Amino acid sequence: MEKFNALYAQSGGVTAVINASACGVIQTARKHSDKIGKVYAARNGIIGALTEDLIDTSLESDTDIAALRYTPSGAFGSCRHKLGSIEKHRKQYERLVEVFSAHNIRYFFYNGGGDSQDTAHKVSLISKELGYPITCIGIPKTVDNDLPFTDNSPGFGSVAKYVAVSIREAGMDVASMALTSTKVFILEVMGRHAGWIAAAGGLAAEKEGDSPHIILFPEIPLNTEAFFKRVEETVKKYDHCSIVVSEGLKNPDGDFISEQGLVDAFGHKQLGGVAPVIAKLIKDKLGYKYHWALADYLQRAARHIASKTDVEQAYAVGKSAVEMALSGKNAVMPIIVREKGETYRWTIGEAPLEKVANVEVKMPREYISENGFGITDACRRYLAPLIQGEDYPPFHQGLPAYVKLKNLPVEKKLSTTFEFA
Amino acid sequence: MEKFNALYAQSGGVTAVINASACGVIQTARKHSDKIGKVYAARNGIIGALTEDLIDTSLESDTDIAALRYTPSGAFGSCRHKLGSIEKHRKQYERLVEVFSAHNIRYFFYNGGGDSQDTAHKVSLISKELGYPITCIGIPKTVDNDLPFTDNSPGFGSVAKYVAVSIREAGMDVASMALTSTKVFILEVMGRHAGWIAAAGGLAAEKEGDSPHIILFPEIPLNTEAFFKRVEETVKKYDHCSIVVSEGLKNPDGDFISEQGLVDAFGHKQLGGVAPVIAKLIKDKLGYKYHWALADYLQRAARHIASKTDVEQAYAVGKSAVEMALSGKNAVMPIIVREKGETYRWTIGEAPLEKVANVEVKMPREYISENGFGITDACRRYLAPLIQGEDYPPFHQGLPAYVKLKNLPVEKKLSTTFEFA
Repeated sequence: MEKFNALYAQSGGVTAVINASACGVIQTARKHSDKIGKVYAARNGIIGALTEDLIDTSLESDTDIAALRYTPSGAFGSCRHKLGSIEKHRKQYERLVEVFSAHNIRYFFYNGGGDSQDTAHKVSLISKELGYPITCIGIPKTVDNDLPFTDNSPGFGSVAKYVAVSIREAGMDVASMALTSTKVFILEVMGRHAGWIAAAGGLAAEKEGDSPHIILFPEIPLNTEAFFKRVEETVKKYDHCSIVVSEGLKNPDGDFISEQGLVDAFGHKQLGGVAPVIAKLIKDKLGYKYHWALADYLQRAARHIASKTDVEQAYAVGKSAVEMALSGKNAVMPIIVREKGETYRWTIGEAPLEKVANVEVKMPREYISENGFGITDACRRYLAPLIQGEDYPPFHQGLPAYVKLKNLPVEKKLSTTFEFA
Repeated sequence: MEKFNALYAQSGGVTAVINASACGVIQTARKHSDKIGKVYAARNGIIGALTEDLIDTSLESDTDIAALRYTPSGAFGSCRHKLGSIEKHRKQYERLVEVFSAHNIRYFFYNGGGDSQDTAHKVSLISKELGYPITCIGIPKTVDNDLPFTDNSPGFGSVAKYVAVSIREAGMDVASMALTSTKVFILEVMGRHAGWIAAAGGLAAEKEGDSPHIILFPEIPLNTEAFFKRVEETVKKYDHCSIVVSEGLKNPDGDFISEQGLVDAFGHKQLGGVAPVIAKLIKDKLGYKYHWALADYLQRAARHIASKTDVEQAYAVGKSAVEMALSGKNAVMPIIVREKGETYRWTIGEAPLEKVANVEVKMPREYISENGFGITDACRRYLAPLIQGEDYPPFHQGLPAYVKLKNLPVEKKLSTTFEFA
C-alpha cells in the first residue's frame, strides 16, 4: 500500500482541549506509519493550507506530542476564515489541490465548529469536483456546544466545569461578605447565540440557596421587573444573590444588553460587557453593592480545571478521525453518542459532513425553568456527565507545564504564492 | 488550670485560604481541650461579637472542621467594620467585655488584614483599659500582601498562582487566534493600592515572548505613548500581546483610569473596570482586535487552584496563634519568616499588633523593571516560592466538595442588644 501524508488543521476559537484532539490524530497516525507518512499541520488553519505554510509534526518528539493532551490553545494556530463555494471560488480549491499534490497529502483533518465543518465539507467535494483523491474528515470542537448529531461538542465540557466551579467559589465569597459589603455578584460567560455555557453554571446549585440564584439566558429576553423582584427576594432570603449572565442576553426588543447604554467620553458606544450593565441596573433600582467578573478567554483556556470526560472525548474524536480515514470513510465527522441508561456511557459514531455543516443546535426551551431564571432537571441530567472528572496537567515551579512545539516549517515546493481573500 | 473559651472571627475581604487558618485555630484548640473550652466563632467578624451573635464550633464534626482547610470564603461570615478608639467609643469595648464575660471568653483570635489587625490591637488594650483579662492574637490574611513584618500575607500566594496560571492560559489562547482575529488580551486583576497581584502575573513569563508581555502597575502612572509603542512592538514581534493590568492603574494626574471616561446613557459615571478602557485605547490608536477579562472575586475565591505553600502557611498562622495564646503571649500576630538561603524555607515568628496595625507595605520600586512594564529578577525571586505546589480540594460529581458548616448559634446570655455604629 502506497503511503500518503496527512494534513491536520485547527479552526475557529480555540479551547482547553482542541490540542487533545490533535494529540489523538498524531498519535494514532504514528501508530499507522505503514499507511500514513507524515502528519503535517497547517499553520493557522485553512490559511496555512492555502499559503503552503505547513508544519512538519514528525519533527516533534513523542513526549511533546503526548503533552498536547494537557495543553490548552491551538498548538498550530487557528483562524477565522471560511472557504467560499467551489463554484464561485474555484481558484482556492485548485490551490488546495496544488498544495496537497505537492506534498503528497491525501488525508485532510479539519478540527473546528460549525463554520469549520462547512469548510471541511467543501474540501471533501474536491475529489468529485476537481478529481484529486482526498479523504476529508471533520473533527468536532466548539465551546458553544452547537454542533448537530454529537451528544456534545468537545471543548464545551471544560468551559462548563470552569463556569460551575467559578460561580460556586465566587458565590461562597459574596455570601461571606454580604452583611456589611457586597450583596450581589455577577459572572458574565460566553455564549452569544445559545445559553449552554450559562446553563452549566446552574450545576453549581445543588441545594436550596446555593449559587447561582439566577441565570440570564440569551434565549430569554430580560424582563427587568421580574428580574428585580427575584434579586430582591433572593437577597431577602439568603442575604446575597449571585448571578450568571450570558454575553448574549437581549432586551425584549431583541438588542444585546451589552451594546446598550455605555458610551465613552467622546460619545462612542462602548462594548463593556453585559455584567456591568446588569450590576448598574440592580444598584440603581435596589441599591445593593455589587461585584462582577467577566471570564472571557479564561473560561475556554482553563486547561488547569478541564473536565476529564471532555479531554477523553476530545482525544477520542481525534483518534477516530484517523481510524475512519484509514477504514475508507470520507466526508464524515466522528461524533459522541450517549448510550441509553442511567449511567453516562458514550461511544463514537459518525455523521456526514454535508449534514453537519452550518447547522446550529439551540438549547431546548425545556432545559430552562419556567420562570426563565434557572435550569431544569432535564438540563442537569444532560449537563452533569460532561463535567465529570479532573485531569490536571503536570506542574513545574507552581505553574502548568504546557508544551510549546517547535513547529518547524515544511520546505515549500510551489513557486507561486497565494493571497487569501 | 481553669478552662476558658475562645472567640475566633474573620474580617475584611475573604480569601481562598482564610478558612485554612480557621481550621488551624480550631483543630489546635481541640488538641488543647485541657486549657481551652469551646471555640466560638463570631458571625460576620467583630459585629457578631458586639451583637452576641456567636456560633458554637464545638457542634461541628472533626471531618467538617478538617474540610475548612480546602474550603474558600469565610465560613463564619466576614465584615468590613473597624472599631473606633477606646477613648471615643468606650461603650463598644464595654459591650465586648460583657459578651466575653457572659460566655467565659478569655482568648480572642482575629483573622484579617491591616484594618482588622488595628481592631485586634484595640481589643488587646481591653485588659489594661477595662480590666478584663483577654488574650488577643491577630492572624494575618489579605490578598493585598501589604501586611508588615510577615514575608507575605496568607491569601496572596493563591491569588498570585491563579493570576499567573490564568494569564499563561489566556495568553496561549490569543497567540493561537492572532493571525485573523484577536491580537491583544487584557486581564484586569485586584490591587487598588499596590501592584503585588499584577506582578504575580509576571511569573507566567519564563521565556522570551511568553505572556504576559506587559504589566500595568498602580505604582507607575500610565504613559500612553510608551505603552502604545510597547504594544505595537510586541504585536510586530510576536503577532499578539497580552497584558495584565491592576485595577489601581492611574493616569499621570493621579486619577484611577477605571473612573475616567465611561458614562451610561443617563450621563452617570460608570465603574466599568480599567481593562475595557485600556482595550478601547489600544483599538482607537492601533486598531487591534482585543479581548479582555476581569477576574474580580474569581481570583481570590479560586481554592481549586490554590498554592499549597499558601494553604500551609495559612494553616500554620492559625495553629501558631493558639499556641502563642497558650504560651502566655498577647497582642501579637504570628508572621511568616523567610529563612536565608537559596531554597525557600519558612518558619513562624511574631510581631506586636501595635506595630502591625495600619501599616501598609508597598511594593519596592526595584521589583518593577526600569521601563515600568514588567517585573525584575528580584521580584521573581520573592514571588516564585509563594505559588509553589498544588493542593486540590476533593471533588464530587465534577465539582469541588466544599463544606458548609452548620453554624449553630450559641444561646444568648445578655438581655441587652447592641446597635453597632
